[in-house]
Amino acid sequence: MLPKTPAKGMRDFLPAEFALRQYVLSTIQSTYESYGFSRIETPAVENIALLTSKQGGDNEKLIFKILKRGEKLKESEQGELCDLGLRYDLTVPLARFYANNAGQLPAVFKAMQLDSVWRADRPQRGRFRQFVQCDIDVIGEATNLAETELILATTTALDKLGFSDVNVRISDRRLLNALARCAGFSEQQTPAVFIALDKMDKIGVVGVMQELEAVAPDKAEPFINLICRITAAEDPFALCAEELGDYLPAEVRKNLEEILYVTNNCITNGKVSFDVTLVRGMGYYTGTIYEISVEGLTSSVAGGGRYDKMIGRIMGTDVPACGFSIGFERIVLLLQERGFVPPAKRGMAVLVDKNMDKKQLLDVEQACRHLRERRKVTVLRKAKNFGYQLKQLAESGCDEIYEFRNGKFEKLG
Amino acid sequence: MLPKTPAKGMRDFLPAEFALRQYVLSTIQSTYESYGFSRIETPAVENIALLTSKQGGDNEKLIFKILKRGEKLKESEQGELCDLGLRYDLTVPLARFYANNAGQLPAVFKAMQLDSVWRADRPQRGRFRQFVQCDIDVIGEATNLAETELILATTTALDKLGFSDVNVRISDRRLLNALARCAGFSEQQTPAVFIALDKMDKIGVVGVMQELEAVAPDKAEPFINLICRITAAEDPFALCAEELGDYLPAEVRKNLEEILYVTNNCITNGKVSFDVTLVRGMGYYTGTIYEISVEGLTSSVAGGGRYDKMIGRIMGTDVPACGFSIGFERIVLLLQERGFVPPAKRGMAVLVDKNMDKKQLLDVEQACRHLRERRKVTVLRKAKNFGYQLKQLAESGCDEIYEFRNGKFEKLG
Repeated sequence: MLPKTPAKGMRDFLPAEFALRQYVLSTIQSTYESYGFSRIETPAVENIALLTSKQGGDNEKLIFKILKRGEKLKESEQGELCDLGLRYDLTVPLARFYANNAGQLPAVFKAMQLDSVWRADRPQRGRFRQFVQCDIDVIGEATNLAETELILATTTALDKLGFSDVNVRISDRRLLNALARCAGFSEQQTPAVFIALDKMDKIGVVGVMQELEAVAPDKAEPFINLICRITAAEDPFALCAEELGDYLPAEVRKNLEEILYVTNNCITNGKVSFDVTLVRGMGYYTGTIYEISVEGLTSSVAGGGRYDKMIGRIMGTDVPACGFSIGFERIVLLLQERGFVPPAKRGMAVLVDKNMDKKQLLDVEQACRHLRERRKVTVLRKAKNFGYQLKQLAESGCDEIYEFRNGKFEKLG
Repeated sequence: MLPKTPAKGMRDFLPAEFALRQYVLSTIQSTYESYGFSRIETPAVENIALLTSKQGGDNEKLIFKILKRGEKLKESEQGELCDLGLRYDLTVPLARFYANNAGQLPAVFKAMQLDSVWRADRPQRGRFRQFVQCDIDVIGEATNLAETELILATTTALDKLGFSDVNVRISDRRLLNALARCAGFSEQQTPAVFIALDKMDKIGVVGVMQELEAVAPDKAEPFINLICRITAAEDPFALCAEELGDYLPAEVRKNLEEILYVTNNCITNGKVSFDVTLVRGMGYYTGTIYEISVEGLTSSVAGGGRYDKMIGRIMGTDVPACGFSIGFERIVLLLQERGFVPPAKRGMAVLVDKNMDKKQLLDVEQACRHLRERRKVTVLRKAKNFGYQLKQLAESGCDEIYEFRNGKFEKLG
């Protein structure tokens, strides 16, 4: 017997769930369009060399790899079996896209991607092996106009989806670097320091301290103390400036203060605040980083940051870049939990007799042709189990049901 | 250096091309919705057992196969390396979807799928390794109400895309079988007969006859003669009935005549006609088959048919099914050749000074916030090469460009 179920960790979407997903996508798209972002698309499949170029972090361990074909497979028995893979995010393909098409793109390119990605992760509740990401990126803009607009566009999209109280946290990788350096951690130790700090909301201060002691026993406590003092400070930037001195470039403070000022004065559905414990997982960030959480979910629903060095690895010249990614599946899950149903076009069903002849069928089709200019009309043979048919039609969103007899519509139910 | 270009046979879509593609998709979707079809989605990746179950015909030779991962790969060194693959069409996954979800679907299920498929084909002009198909299928309807509505929905969608003169050709696999049997070909020879006949528009009558002579030398000529006489006949169905006698079940003629009568009297952008040389490639068709061609393209832009036995192979019980698939990429190519540009929302650009302070930036963002409720507004730093920036903005569809100075918009260019 053939398998009926989708492959492990993958999903079928029935009409109602598909409609919700498309509503969310189209709300995000129209909001992002109003901010001047344009949709682009890259293929689902990329060369394996791009996907394994150490820009995807741990996601590179989760690639679905595609076997070589034909002669190439035969020749490769001693070597690599795979030449392609499914993309695990939309950022690495975007960097390649920009490098490939820069000549045809404007100096400041505002890209939107709403697309599936694939990760061979262990499936668990709310985590799937094919899922949608909604990314916007500003490429070619070095100033914080990029971050400001990314944050406003993303919080506005969430507002339009009914998230009226969002919490945006923001920091800067250069500030985290300064903190690590100031506490005496070496450059080589910094990634481990970030990984530990990133777990603050899961394992707490004591847990983070224990992990840091494993990195450098004598540096953990002063580092954690400083983090706690900054978190508690009335003016955290003043304290950072005072404590970090020359470790912290002046523009980092100015950058964060400007973004906070503009976004907090514009946002209507929540607040934006500095969070010194914010790390973000990916290694490619070079400056500002940010994350959004909403009520009802401990993990974030959106995140992003500046990655000024990534495109250069493919193009040869660095191009400033900055992005924000909405975790689409989490948004859909939250809306489903709230019982949200997207607005739908009114539907009408026309039932016809099983033995209707071709002249009668032509009558129905001609009558429906005009109705279909402005509404959904489904023509169906009247079922033997008529009561059940009416029930199913009502459930599938038909709000008017007619029978077509003797050239006329007769309303039912 | 990392690869900049997409993988072989795959494409990047820049904003203008993406917008055209999305316009075509949304036109098709809204038309199909008006006929009562609902969108569903299956994963891009399916179990390899499903994809290689001999329902995909020659497409099964073109599967992108996905390597097993982790322990499973190590264990499989003697056996199969792959457990998954990318779908090569939307019909085989739909049959699995229906088998998996039948309990939650209405008795007559009208499905729409607009999605990518992948084939490791030799890339050539207009043929790609990732491309979009637009399928509608009626599952659970045994009568030709299904075929009638599929043909009307598809021709209406093409009409809305500007194809005002379409040519729908229709036949029935049961009629082709009767012809082959009547000419003396055995059941085993029938697939080869169909493959030969399918090449009529490429290799002509003489070419087809030569191929048929290779199958059975003495049966080729009478078969071809009959095909030619039916093609030329004033009433081809009467001739078929006369010549084929008991080989042709009576309902086949009635089925085709009814579909032709209703669709020809409803269609406003072309005609529907019987074509005895129509075969369609796939082996799974069991009844009516049809194809649409438009001016400017020798190959068809849409095709489909009835496949009443396919779902049964997965579900265990047969369910009548009938579908129509639009070749999306061909439609897009034709529209591009015609220079068609989809309608777009008006765009506006606001240029701000490079050294603008945070108060001024807040002014801009607050002013744009309201404008964005009804139009696209992109905020950009004024570039050094200002003239070039204006040119690029005009090209990217900005029809109004403003500078924001001293709290006010000043119109430019």
